[in-house]
Parts: sequence; structure tokens; C-alpha cells
Amino acid sequence: MTDQNKTSAPPSGGRGAGFALDVCLSPALIPLYKVSGYIVVVIDIFRATSSICYGIENGAEAIIPVSEVEECAAYREKGLDYLLAAERNGEVVEGFDFGNSPFSYTAEKVAGKTVVLTTTNGTHALHLSRSAKRIVIGSFLNLTSLCNWLKTQNENILLVCAGWKNNFNLEDTLFAGAVIEQLKGEGYILDDPSIAANDLFQLGKSDIPQYLSKTSHGERLKKLGIEKDIAFCLQVDLTTAIPVLDGEKLVKLA
Amino acid sequence: MTDQNKTSAPPSGGRGAGFALDVCLSPALIPLYKVSGYIVVVIDIFRATSSICYGIENGAEAIIPVSEVEECAAYREKGLDYLLAAERNGEVVEGFDFGNSPFSYTAEKVAGKTVVLTTTNGTHALHLSRSAKRIVIGSFLNLTSLCNWLKTQNENILLVCAGWKNNFNLEDTLFAGAVIEQLKGEGYILDDPSIAANDLFQLGKSDIPQYLSKTSHGERLKKLGIEKDIAFCLQVDLTTAIPVLDGEKLVKLA
Repeated sequence: MTDQNKTSAPPSGGRGAGFALDVCLSPALIPLYKVSGYIVVVIDIFRATSSICYGIENGAEAIIPVSEVEECAAYREKGLDYLLAAERNGEVVEGFDFGNSPFSYTAEKVAGKTVVLTTTNGTHALHLSRSAKRIVIGSFLNLTSLCNWLKTQNENILLVCAGWKNNFNLEDTLFAGAVIEQLKGEGYILDDPSIAANDLFQLGKSDIPQYLSKTSHGERLKKLGIEKDIAFCLQVDLTTAIPVLDGEKLVKLA
Repeated sequence: MTDQNKTSAPPSGGRGAGFALDVCLSPALIPLYKVSGYIVVVIDIFRATSSICYGIENGAEAIIPVSEVEECAAYREKGLDYLLAAERNGEVVEGFDFGNSPFSYTAEKVAGKTVVLTTTNGTHALHLSRSAKRIVIGSFLNLTSLCNWLKTQNENILLVCAGWKNNFNLEDTLFAGAVIEQLKGEGYILDDPSIAANDLFQLGKSDIPQYLSKTSHGERLKKLGIEKDIAFCLQVDLTTAIPVLDGEKLVKLA
């Protein structure tokens, strides 16, 4: 069977030959993986990891992801150089500098600054992935740059979907499928979630915004009036910077 | 947008109008659902729920799923009427009547008997779903019969994929997508995992065995020399009985 041959004999010379390319469909499933054996890519397309990629591209010195608005507010006491981003129900929380919209992460606003960003799903996924060899941030914005870097690493790769309330969502999974699309010719071994993610990407790739318009989360975000954010987050290869976790901060990969 | 209209306004008169049709992609995600609000369908295509459907169809009085070989062996002391099914690494465990192959669940072997079956993934999923309004068993073998019954229930439905070692697998998800294919015209509200499962089914439906031949688990089972079991488990509508959990036993739904 050709499929069997494909799995057991990756193309010789592939830079990922013999390495695993796995997809973790929700933070609740992270404990099933030996995270310390992987480079982890954290994915939270709407909107945390898209905003992080855009902010780092635009010269933010660092972005600190935190879970709670209170945790974010505590940085106010630590110094005046922090920009604080907090949003609940689609509105900027009073007293904060801005919300989670990628449009807040322009060079004018963030260059040279450290941003403290509240994000529930994304922070949770980062926290659970801490033992990884390295943690980087992915979004459609930096897709090809990220994939080109991953190809040179000679490591197992785990694509961690932040999901929605600890469960599977389509947009993060579709992005994982887009990464696999660029890497799969390199001889990596795919697990079942990787195969599924890539197959879903095949269905959606010709018109990703249209494909995702049917998701429950997309509907929810539309009702919040952030269609522009959604369209922005689905742009492919707008940026090249790869945010990497360094201690508690996300900084630009050198 | 048409998709939006579809979600917010189910076709009037659909028998599932307003009810949820959700897919739980792995037992590890069951705690995210309020199971007590659902009818649960447990799915473990290779091979537990396929064998259970076939055994109940063929007149087994009951099938008792247990996790461990030792637990299964303990039934030997309880009486002579139990048939004990235990398998490890594809071989019948010494002293047991048969393994997990559906071919062991013929009328000649199981009619009028109670079978105690060891199954890791399937038992785990059943156990975690205990608070459900009702728990039934699904497989490709009883697909249409199961769907016809579900349509008459006027309840939320949760399709629980037993998966592989607590993680996602393609074959259980594809079956969930096949159930959704038959129910989706009835006005149920689909969550993201349901949309994904049904989309994967669209990709696989023209040749399910071929589609699943690329899964890691399919490869693993092939190596165990049970290709015949796999082909058997992928037959659609061979049976009509719906196994339902009654206490600790699976019996035929009256």
C-alpha cells in the first residue's frame, strides 16, 4: 500500500526525517505529550498569537502574557514603561491602554515598549508547555517564516492549539494544518491529529475566512463587532518575526 | 451570510431543532461537557464498540465491559455462564474464551450468553460518561439504526470518541462525522468538533477503508495481522440492534 510506504519510509534527505510533527488539539491534552522532547508552537489565532506576532514584528521589546486582568493591572505598580492590554467582552477595560485587537500593536504604539497582555487560552497553553525545549508563537501572519525556521531545527515539533475554553476549535487547528502543509514534505512522522488538521486545511485553504465563518467562535467574535480583527488575523505572511519565550517574556527570536 | 443564517435559524420542523449535537474528541475532554444533559453515544470503532454491536445483534444477553484482564478473569468465579474475552497484543490471553475480534461475536458463540469484554479505551469512555441521560453504543455496523433512533429522542446528543490512549484518533472521529451526516438536516446546533468531524467524513466517505489506511492506529492494527477485523468493522449497516447501558451491562435497546 502506498500510504503504508509513505509512513514507514520518509523521503530520504528530508530535514525532518524521523522527527515527530504532532498536533495537540487542546491544552487539556498537553499532559498526553512528553513536552520536554519537543519544540512547541503555541497557536491562538483569534487573537492572542496574531497580536503577539504583529507586536513583536513592530518592535515591541517584549510581550508578557498573563491570565487575569488583575495580574495585568499589577504591572502598573512595577513601572511606567509597561503598556497594559486588557479586554473583557470585546471592550477595553477601564484604566488600561488598549485591548487585544492586533490594530493596537502598531509600531507607533508598541515600538520599544513592553506590553502586558491578558489572554486566557493562550496563557494557559504557554504555561502547560513550559518544559518544552523551546516555545515559539505562530499565527497566519508569520506562517512561512515560522515554518522555514522549524525546518532547520532537527527536533520533534508539537503544535499546541490554545483552543476555546480548553476544547478544540477550528481556527487554531486549521493553522496547525497550514504549518503541516509546509513541513510535511520533509519526512516528519505525523500523528492522527496532524493528519486531521492537515486534511481540514485542504478543505479550507482556498478561502480560509469563508471556511472559518461557520465556526461557533467565529460567530461569537462577529457578534462582538470585531470582523476587522478576524480578517486581519487571517492574513498570511504579513510578518517575519518569530516570538520566542524567554523566561516570562516573549521576545523576538534572534 | 448564509452560514450564519444556518446556525442561528435551524430549518423549522427539524426534529433536532435547538438541541446540541456535540462531539467529544477524546475521553480527556469529557469533563468539559455537562454530560448529564446529553444522550451519549460511545464510539470505539477498532474494535470494542463494533464487537459489542455485533454481539448484541447476534443475541448476546448482555456484554459487560471491563478495563483489566484481571477484572475479566474474576468473572470466572461468579459462575459458568460468562464468556470471557481478553486480548493483549492481538492474542487471546491463555485461559480466556476469545479475544476482541468481532468474528468471535457470532450467534453460534454468544447467543443467550453474557460476555465479559476487556477494553481499555471503550471502558474508560463509558465510565466517564456515567451521568448521561442514557448511554448507547455506536459503530459503522449499526449506523443508520442508531441515527434513526437518535432523531426521535428530542435530546442533546454527545458523540464520545474513545480515541487512542486518551487522545484523538481518526476512525472514531470519522464515525462521529458519519452520524452528524445523517442528523445535520434536523436542525441540531453543531459545535466546532462536530463541524470538523463532519468535514473529515466528507473527505473519507467515498472510501472509508482507504482514508483510514493512513492513520497511525490503522498501521498498528495492520501489523497485528487483523486486517480482516478492520474491514469487518468498517461495514456500514450490517446490524440494527442498539446496545444501551443498563447498570454495568450493555443490553439490547427494547
